[in-house]
Amino acid sequence: VYTYKTLVWGLDGIDVQELSIAGVAGLECSAGSLGIKRDHSPDAAAFVLPRKSAYAGVFTSNVFRSACVDSALTRLHAGKEIRAVLITSGNANAGTGIAGRADTEMMAAAVGEELGCPADEVVVLHTGVIGVPLGAQRLLPALAPLLAARSADPEAGQAAAQAMMTTDTVSKTVVRNVDLGGGVQGTIGGVAKGAGMIHPRLATMLSVIVTDIPVGSSALQLALTQAVKTSFNAISVDGDTSPNDSVILLSCPSDATVSSPLAPGTQAFTTFCAGLTEVCEELARMIVRDGEGATKFLEIVVTGAESDADADRVAVTIATSPLVKTAFYGEDFNPGRIISAIGRSGAAFDLAQVRMQIGGLAVFADGMFLRVDSESAREVMSRTDIVIEVALGTGVGRCRFYTCDLTDGYVRINAEYTT
Amino acid sequence: VYTYKTLVWGLDGIDVQELSIAGVAGLECSAGSLGIKRDHSPDAAAFVLPRKSAYAGVFTSNVFRSACVDSALTRLHAGKEIRAVLITSGNANAGTGIAGRADTEMMAAAVGEELGCPADEVVVLHTGVIGVPLGAQRLLPALAPLLAARSADPEAGQAAAQAMMTTDTVSKTVVRNVDLGGGVQGTIGGVAKGAGMIHPRLATMLSVIVTDIPVGSSALQLALTQAVKTSFNAISVDGDTSPNDSVILLSCPSDATVSSPLAPGTQAFTTFCAGLTEVCEELARMIVRDGEGATKFLEIVVTGAESDADADRVAVTIATSPLVKTAFYGEDFNPGRIISAIGRSGAAFDLAQVRMQIGGLAVFADGMFLRVDSESAREVMSRTDIVIEVALGTGVGRCRFYTCDLTDGYVRINAEYTT
Repeated sequence: VYTYKTLVWGLDGIDVQELSIAGVAGLECSAGSLGIKRDHSPDAAAFVLPRKSAYAGVFTSNVFRSACVDSALTRLHAGKEIRAVLITSGNANAGTGIAGRADTEMMAAAVGEELGCPADEVVVLHTGVIGVPLGAQRLLPALAPLLAARSADPEAGQAAAQAMMTTDTVSKTVVRNVDLGGGVQGTIGGVAKGAGMIHPRLATMLSVIVTDIPVGSSALQLALTQAVKTSFNAISVDGDTSPNDSVILLSCPSDATVSSPLAPGTQAFTTFCAGLTEVCEELARMIVRDGEGATKFLEIVVTGAESDADADRVAVTIATSPLVKTAFYGEDFNPGRIISAIGRSGAAFDLAQVRMQIGGLAVFADGMFLRVDSESAREVMSRTDIVIEVALGTGVGRCRFYTCDLTDGYVRINAEYTT
Repeated sequence: VYTYKTLVWGLDGIDVQELSIAGVAGLECSAGSLGIKRDHSPDAAAFVLPRKSAYAGVFTSNVFRSACVDSALTRLHAGKEIRAVLITSGNANAGTGIAGRADTEMMAAAVGEELGCPADEVVVLHTGVIGVPLGAQRLLPALAPLLAARSADPEAGQAAAQAMMTTDTVSKTVVRNVDLGGGVQGTIGGVAKGAGMIHPRLATMLSVIVTDIPVGSSALQLALTQAVKTSFNAISVDGDTSPNDSVILLSCPSDATVSSPLAPGTQAFTTFCAGLTEVCEELARMIVRDGEGATKFLEIVVTGAESDADADRVAVTIATSPLVKTAFYGEDFNPGRIISAIGRSGAAFDLAQVRMQIGGLAVFADGMFLRVDSESAREVMSRTDIVIEVALGTGVGRCRFYTCDLTDGYVRINAEYTT
């Protein structure tokens, strides 16, 4: 069960400001300016592990994708182990052709040179304005001091999480301890950025997650793909996807943790997957909660669909309907807009079997809207967190999805930038 | 070729205020208050033909649909001819169960009684708030005076077009003369309402079109289904559909027009279809131009797709992207957002073959963004009407689609109503 406190204050009630990914699995972090942003504000975050580590990744499904995604996928498909991740913001290096790919590789090579490892053990991710040449050459001199300043101190992790921020209003870090049984403990820590799905200057959703739990690369990919389904793939701010969306997971076991990699099918692997899913879902909810202009956090639970895919269709249609999202912004109790969205979703169902609750209030059954007293409706709509439950009454397909309201703040943020 | 003048001033440069559907095919119109709206502003428009007429209709594809759509479909499927259409606004009669269906039929019967025809020769359409009982009984007394006041005067047609308006800011009438050859002339006249796809109080897109050109009901349905494809099905304000969307077409030939119905395959029928398509497209563009909060009219032309369906996918994804729509509102020249939308559309294409123009400026080719001088970009974005041309370079599929920008005006209109 999701609680507000968990999201805002970090897991277990710990103030999110005190959380840091630095130190997890021996991770060293650094933040600084490479000169991409003209005002010299931080535009780079480095994440360096003590040794090369099993690597899993999930990337944007957009056909139009950044050179950095191509570069990261090449390493993934070649089964490479990864020592470091460099994230830069201010320029997405997307729609920049082969020169763009060369720019990304040049930066990876420069990082590798500093760390004493090959370029293909470094993943470089970019976020920012689309279609402008990155010009990596002029950025290289600042890489050495950036990497030299790296540290496992908590402040270094917080600075790195902040350097990733763009239209984000808060940095997003989740650290979770996992009890693998037999007295063995492990840790999973992640950072993420993302506020609107694309922003004219500084775009996209990015996340880096590290763990000291030993997992081989194919099992790691399995775990990440599963975890992303119910987390980063179950959120929408505006329905748009970017050419740069990336989630990177690295496993770097220390000597203190169990020595042999966890095997799929074991209880310990299942526990790891559960912990990873919690970290991803927590980061994903933080992204929605910090959605551009958002004032409400909406959780959509669809059950009883003919298939999970149908449940997904219903949830996504509700979550991306401008009419539903503006009604919540206006605190207008308007179940008709939600039923209309369900009706056009393309999912198979019989309207007479559909039941719906908003914030626990039953609003639709037997093909008709139920009478709701206006005081209860007002109370539900005044909440910051509202759950919409749709039971289709057809099968066993289900989906849980998160979104935010659509506000004039969103329109302003996305209309007022001029590139 | 679409021109601004045509839309705003009516066809052939005639001031739209002077256009009226009344008199077309002998149509008599009337507008008044039935007492649905508490402020007694006009909430009903009646359209009465001299005799029962061939009937075609296209309705919302939403699974959740108003009782009035069920009622209109029953008549259509039974091959009924129609004497009159009554449109009421203020209450959508949707999600109101069997009582709702009885309400619609009760009103049809009352109209039929006044006109001396059976209830199933009357189509009643509703628009307005969803999920509230209509309570037709109390509305019946006002029907007789409404129908008694009907007239073929131009002012009566204008009053009826205005009584249909909800969040619309201008009424929408198109009248088109068609030369059928052999010295035979015909007329097609239509009215429409629609501004956002659903609005909390007064919802949906509705259109009534009448013609004195003789067309049998099955040929009429063929012509309407085709015409709707490139008009009412090629527009989006917010991507939402309502339970009430309806387009009604009635053919009521006078003695002066050719006596036998036009047969599909003949030149005259083709000419009729072309005229009907022009009327529908004109009304559809008027709806977009009057979109809730809209400040820009965007025409999206996709060519070179693998199929028409793929072209449609690309156009709809661009037209419903909040990021694309807010960029145009902000006059931010942002081709990256459009390419990102194309990339997630699901259409099959090779990014390297894609070419794109915005307002005639080439912005993308060979997988890369082209340099555009900022003065030209500024000039294009300052226009009220902007054409986005996407050539996918894959096949011969094509699509033309119309949308508007997304503004804080839209958010305000849809958030500030409380039901």
